[in-house]
Amino acid sequence: MTDFFDDVPEPVRFAGGEGSGGLAYRVYDPDRLVAGKRMEDQLRLAVCYWHSFNWGGSDVFGAGTFDRPWLDAGRDPMEAALEKQDAAFEFFAKLGTPFFCFHDLDMAPPGATLRKSKANLDRLVDRAAQKMDETGVRLLWGTANLFAHPRYAAGAATNPDPEVFVHAAAQVRDALEATYRLGGANYVLWGGREGYETLLNTRLRQEADQLARFLELVAGHKRSIGFAGTLLLEPKPQEPTKHQYDYDCAAVLGFLERYGLADEFKVNIEGNHATLAGHSFHHEVAYAVDHGIFGSIDANRGDPQNGWDTDQFPNSVEELSLVLFEILRGGGFTDGGFNFDTKLRRQSMDRADLFHAHVGAVDTLAQALLVAEALIADGTLSGARDARYAAWDGPLGQRIRQPDTDLAGLADLAARTDLEPTPVSGRQELLENEVNRVTWSMT
Amino acid sequence: MTDFFDDVPEPVRFAGGEGSGGLAYRVYDPDRLVAGKRMEDQLRLAVCYWHSFNWGGSDVFGAGTFDRPWLDAGRDPMEAALEKQDAAFEFFAKLGTPFFCFHDLDMAPPGATLRKSKANLDRLVDRAAQKMDETGVRLLWGTANLFAHPRYAAGAATNPDPEVFVHAAAQVRDALEATYRLGGANYVLWGGREGYETLLNTRLRQEADQLARFLELVAGHKRSIGFAGTLLLEPKPQEPTKHQYDYDCAAVLGFLERYGLADEFKVNIEGNHATLAGHSFHHEVAYAVDHGIFGSIDANRGDPQNGWDTDQFPNSVEELSLVLFEILRGGGFTDGGFNFDTKLRRQSMDRADLFHAHVGAVDTLAQALLVAEALIADGTLSGARDARYAAWDGPLGQRIRQPDTDLAGLADLAARTDLEPTPVSGRQELLENEVNRVTWSMT
Amino acid sequence: MTDFFDDVPEPVRFAGGEGSGGLAYRVYDPDRLVAGKRMEDQLRLAVCYWHSFNWGGSDVFGAGTFDRPWLDAGRDPMEAALEKQDAAFEFFAKLGTPFFCFHDLDMAPPGATLRKSKANLDRLVDRAAQKMDETGVRLLWGTANLFAHPRYAAGAATNPDPEVFVHAAAQVRDALEATYRLGGANYVLWGGREGYETLLNTRLRQEADQLARFLELVAGHKRSIGFAGTLLLEPKPQEPTKHQYDYDCAAVLGFLERYGLADEFKVNIEGNHATLAGHSFHHEVAYAVDHGIFGSIDANRGDPQNGWDTDQFPNSVEELSLVLFEILRGGGFTDGGFNFDTKLRRQSMDRADLFHAHVGAVDTLAQALLVAEALIADGTLSGARDARYAAWDGPLGQRIRQPDTDLAGLADLAARTDLEPTPVSGRQELLENEVNRVTWSMT
Amino acid sequence: MTDFFDDVPEPVRFAGGEGSGGLAYRVYDPDRLVAGKRMEDQLRLAVCYWHSFNWGGSDVFGAGTFDRPWLDAGRDPMEAALEKQDAAFEFFAKLGTPFFCFHDLDMAPPGATLRKSKANLDRLVDRAAQKMDETGVRLLWGTANLFAHPRYAAGAATNPDPEVFVHAAAQVRDALEATYRLGGANYVLWGGREGYETLLNTRLRQEADQLARFLELVAGHKRSIGFAGTLLLEPKPQEPTKHQYDYDCAAVLGFLERYGLADEFKVNIEGNHATLAGHSFHHEVAYAVDHGIFGSIDANRGDPQNGWDTDQFPNSVEELSLVLFEILRGGGFTDGGFNFDTKLRRQSMDRADLFHAHVGAVDTLAQALLVAEALIADGTLSGARDARYAAWDGPLGQRIRQPDTDLAGLADLAARTDLEPTPVSGRQELLENEVNRVTWSMT
Repeated sequence: MTDFFDDVPEPVRFAGGEGSGGLAYRVYDPDRLVAGKRMEDQLRLAVCYWHSFNWGGSDVFGAGTFDRPWLDAGRDPMEAALEKQDAAFEFFAKLGTPFFCFHDLDMAPPGATLRKSKANLDRLVDRAAQKMDETGVRLLWGTANLFAHPRYAAGAATNPDPEVFVHAAAQVRDALEATYRLGGANYVLWGGREGYETLLNTRLRQEADQLARFLELVAGHKRSIGFAGTLLLEPKPQEPTKHQYDYDCAAVLGFLERYGLADEFKVNIEGNHATLAGHSFHHEVAYAVDHGIFGSIDANRGDPQNGWDTDQFPNSVEELSLVLFEILRGGGFTDGGFNFDTKLRRQSMDRADLFHAHVGAVDTLAQALLVAEALIADGTLSGARDARYAAWDGPLGQRIRQPDTDLAGLADLAARTDLEPTPVSGRQELLENEVNRVTWSMT
Repeated sequence: MTDFFDDVPEPVRFAGGEGSGGLAYRVYDPDRLVAGKRMEDQLRLAVCYWHSFNWGGSDVFGAGTFDRPWLDAGRDPMEAALEKQDAAFEFFAKLGTPFFCFHDLDMAPPGATLRKSKANLDRLVDRAAQKMDETGVRLLWGTANLFAHPRYAAGAATNPDPEVFVHAAAQVRDALEATYRLGGANYVLWGGREGYETLLNTRLRQEADQLARFLELVAGHKRSIGFAGTLLLEPKPQEPTKHQYDYDCAAVLGFLERYGLADEFKVNIEGNHATLAGHSFHHEVAYAVDHGIFGSIDANRGDPQNGWDTDQFPNSVEELSLVLFEILRGGGFTDGGFNFDTKLRRQSMDRADLFHAHVGAVDTLAQALLVAEALIADGTLSGARDARYAAWDGPLGQRIRQPDTDLAGLADLAARTDLEPTPVSGRQELLENEVNRVTWSMT
Repeated sequence: MTDFFDDVPEPVRFAGGEGSGGLAYRVYDPDRLVAGKRMEDQLRLAVCYWHSFNWGGSDVFGAGTFDRPWLDAGRDPMEAALEKQDAAFEFFAKLGTPFFCFHDLDMAPPGATLRKSKANLDRLVDRAAQKMDETGVRLLWGTANLFAHPRYAAGAATNPDPEVFVHAAAQVRDALEATYRLGGANYVLWGGREGYETLLNTRLRQEADQLARFLELVAGHKRSIGFAGTLLLEPKPQEPTKHQYDYDCAAVLGFLERYGLADEFKVNIEGNHATLAGHSFHHEVAYAVDHGIFGSIDANRGDPQNGWDTDQFPNSVEELSLVLFEILRGGGFTDGGFNFDTKLRRQSMDRADLFHAHVGAVDTLAQALLVAEALIADGTLSGARDARYAAWDGPLGQRIRQPDTDLAGLADLAARTDLEPTPVSGRQELLENEVNRVTWSMT
Repeated sequence: MTDFFDDVPEPVRFAGGEGSGGLAYRVYDPDRLVAGKRMEDQLRLAVCYWHSFNWGGSDVFGAGTFDRPWLDAGRDPMEAALEKQDAAFEFFAKLGTPFFCFHDLDMAPPGATLRKSKANLDRLVDRAAQKMDETGVRLLWGTANLFAHPRYAAGAATNPDPEVFVHAAAQVRDALEATYRLGGANYVLWGGREGYETLLNTRLRQEADQLARFLELVAGHKRSIGFAGTLLLEPKPQEPTKHQYDYDCAAVLGFLERYGLADEFKVNIEGNHATLAGHSFHHEVAYAVDHGIFGSIDANRGDPQNGWDTDQFPNSVEELSLVLFEILRGGGFTDGGFNFDTKLRRQSMDRADLFHAHVGAVDTLAQALLVAEALIADGTLSGARDARYAAWDGPLGQRIRQPDTDLAGLADLAARTDLEPTPVSGRQELLENEVNRVTWSMT
């Protein structure tokens, strides 16, 4: 078998900042110790199967532009899937990142029936297991595509037709077991169609109940098969639906707690989904870390001027160093990692572009990790934050928290003492300068 | 005492569609029965004190333009407050809407100390009570302004300084008791500064804990004084803060449930806040109704092209008829109502503009109410919705919900039967046509 | 040949507001006189070929859901095109709207070479001409698809490769001649890829020069073949590109004037493109009318909460009555009309949904037209506008416009007279009420 | 006289990256040569009078929080203005940036008449001239505040009342002459109210004519007094108006060319205004440079999640290095510079915060300038761009541009040769990596 990516004959290596124009990591040095772990173990980088191997560069307004021969019309689906898998594992191995992620239907073609689909999946999964052994590449997470087929147009778990719910159950069962079999560290559910197009035909509450029931069943199956990985929900506010129920981390957390599922699921946060929901990427990660539901990251970015999911490769150290700062503050990843849920721009049609895009994104995360480590070591941010809230550890803060304190008692205290608190500077600009100081000092 | 609004010598009356150019209601007929109640009792309309009487038309880029002599520089604060109160009650009475709403500091000037502020508030509240007796105007809700003073720049309940928390407690105690004294149907908390400007100096989770503690104390005080009205939180995603914790109904509901407060608080939904959060007004109301936290409405609208809270008077029957459809479906208001949390455009500088704006908004809500009643009577929407979900009441739907059902069982069923659900049209355009049919048939 | 839309055996007729549940126009009555013309001649409605017949309901996240057999994989392209054309003309005729619009590649399949593509187009155009004769359906406009093929990924006229420019020239030549042959009233150019993905690889000014040169050549060809229709550019700010050069009407007008093309081109304004550019639909139409470049309309709407081109069927009389008010004020359409550049929702998978969607949209425009006519007849808006600017016809207004007036003279006048203008109410809320009064009076 | 900023006793100096925690420039080294000029001469940094000295930290929801005693209620206006001026020049001198900018009414209080306002302005300007002599601080630009007073609520030049036009003329005359007297390098017009709140009462075209006439008069006066500086318009899409006529650079350029004013005016581009208009800051600068209207910059940033003008201090090297890359490519500033049209966050209430914010912003621009210089020196971007368009210099590109080329000739060529251009990678990700490579290499 000849290589598909023969323009990149050798694995990509760390060459440091001095690296010449060739394909090499300038910053990502897997074995470098950062915040107490190897860089590779801190970042836990994964390449995704779908955008990188099962998407040809099409968009709503145009056909595919990429050179992905297995996507050509008229190909035998199983042959094409094998060829795709070869190219994917060649890429994973040459890129040198430790993980990949997959959707069931992107790895294996659907069959005419669920049983045939499962047979296809089994075959490809067996082969993937073998390739994983050969290459050392591991599985960060698997998932089931419950959004592309017309049967899911009105939702999978939230469909008005319970047959669709059952069909989705079958698909998730198989994808979850495939993930288990491949040693996946997590299993993800993204509810791309779990939302609505119009409220005129929608029962919001019933659909929430359906979704909760579905997740409950999934969690039960996970336990029954002994899968020890983490189950993850992936918030997104909209697109393709007008409104998706897993709008943002706050909506997901509230939902999980409402239905008693908060111990079973964490979140997989995507940068572009955060910004579509009106939040910074930083916010969503900080919210998840602070509320104990942080799981994993889909590392991409949106375009601040475009209102859809552009899924671009991350390239902003300024954005990601704050994301990594929160992750490190929260103790780093456990099962999760950074998955490149990223699409090449449609004009990036050379095979090598897939390498360039990933290498740049990997280096960006590596650089951001170094900045985050330095921010923590520097201590300015945490020191300022501690000082700002210090009085809550004092007597007044304690009194407020005492169970027998009531509003009238506090109000009387305030009135009796003519209380007039002194406003204190929030020092935002100074703290922003400190972040820049540390960022610019990294070389 | 001469009238302030002497251009409008008589109360505004219902004149019907034939009404000539003068100030009159074309649609709002308080005694007309709609969906089983008097129109007045369905809509429960309220005028707000702050934008209509304590704001002179200034914006970030310019000075006030309105003719509100009590806001002139150099006035004695208490005299000005009395004059303002006279004008406000003159307006309430002439407009003929049954309710008003107030912020403590917009009704009464702050004093040099909390005790003096309370004395001022007591005096104005006593006088308001007398005017309410005279005019029959009632109080929909009161609230405390915990956002304008510099001491609240970093939040009230969520301030890093517990003294600010205590100061806020005193202010809310007094405003809540004033609301109780005036027979208010609700008490509202809008957390305008309960959010952050930068995550660099913020502890998200601690601030959530503080906010929950504050609300717990408020609910306790409500019970201890015997106030039987409803406590309401008002979601808003941002502005003035970069991020407000009460982002939207989903965030508020999750928060309330997390801290065991869901029985104590409902939501006051504002149209313009909904759209700033990336939701339709319709969505936020439907969500609240379906999740049992619907309380009251701040009736205004934003400008779809502007990214800040324009607080315009509502004028879209198309938007509001769907809002009222959900409210009627949920059984209508209990304690809540429609409060005009609305600002005149800065160029609307004639005294009469305040009447024109309110009259148009009242008629818009009245027209929307008639459309909503007709939509319900027509039954097309509910019939379509019922039919769409009907199979969930059948055997498969029941099986899914049975406690002993598991994922494997459902998956096996699907595989064994080669299950392939048939997609069904969502009929969105047809349903939209039906809404238009009903809307256009109202005269 | 059996009918494709056999669920709709008869043409859709006007049945008035009393029309029962069947497919019928409630408002659209082609022969009704509105503002001096037949309703049909005022609205000049057109169905588009591409979304309605050459799109199967796919989106970025899922496969097609509609029942469009000619789009099935493996079909012979020319046979499929013939079948599609039959269905399209059946639909046009049954719907009863007078016009259609087409893209070259949506009507005829591309061939292996430009010459073969032209042969295909010729054959389908001949057949279309025959069907137009038979049905009386006319062509509002034609266009060439210069955005779907990979060769156009980096633009057509603005491509860095001049060969692409030449290829586009060939395609437009053929599409323009086809439009001419079919008696098209206009020819449209939408520059879907005439923009950039990143400024890092883009020469803004050179690409503008290229685009101008292309348009100059098109205008020349139009004259040389004697095509008397109007050439139209279609503004859109972005999508698929990050930034499209024809951002909005102001950008297009400036561009046309800069390159001496303003006499050759007008604009085709799309509702959803207007709102994506941060403008109201009303704004873009008013701007074009006031600046003499108003040509035609793509009648659709976006979703105010979604940041991409949802291309929904128009259903808001409130939005469209103001659009039609401006069009009527400008004298109505000449060559232009309302083209339904609209997509069914992906769940609207019944064949009849295409009828329901169009019928509702047609009625919405008809209702909006009646409101617009009434607004003009009522005269309140124009009277208020005239009064507001009246002083510009007085001596001071005239003096300002005199060529020999200078700034110093005006400034001296102001200083000498201690000039202090009296602000006047803009009466926005009152005018909005007047619009509602007229809107609600239409039955 | 004691210093106002006595916490900062000494001027801020360059201390390099090793600079300790004290106030010092880490990157901004005025005399360092960058791209052939002193850093100070490349950046031409200016502090603004209005936000930094005439704004107390108020927002729409709350009172001022800053310690600016001259803004206290009840102060004598002229005394307060003198005190403010002392503090401002103390700040300019201690910060060490070479320029400042002012609005007439922020420097001098308005009088009861235009003549008294002018007398106030004259007095403060005389004093400013003296302080400029003493400190060496220069004037980057002046402007007139034509938006804050109620008389301008409906616009200044575009007001429906010509008296307002004349009043504005007087104010601009005086501000322009004051700018001239102080040796200003530019004069700026920001049309904050030159737009509309509702189209219902607006004549778009007439208002454009009025604005053009006003600018024509201003340009005439500039020539007549011999002011050699540059006249600048400042685009902004909205806020405070619903729609501002100077929406973006494309709208401004089109307007200027339409009215024959393109030789008289350039643009002052603000970062936050660019993003509010749906463009990147990079885009607006590149557009202006490429179209010959680049003038000056208001250096600030918005918050990507907030839809209003947050006017934050710039802190993103990633954003600004591309802005500076375009400016350097265009030859650098001539009359223009970077003005900090920036507001402290409302919680930044210490006097020293004003220093911290400016110092961080200055260093950010300095760092971005170094990156931009390196990007140009590196040559990768320009090399890639040149190569991408190279074929336009070849025979086919030339043929396209020849006057006697027509569409038919090109189309025939394409058809005859079965032309099928080969798509070429746009290499976006690779180029983004190159930018990061250079950015990370700066220390």
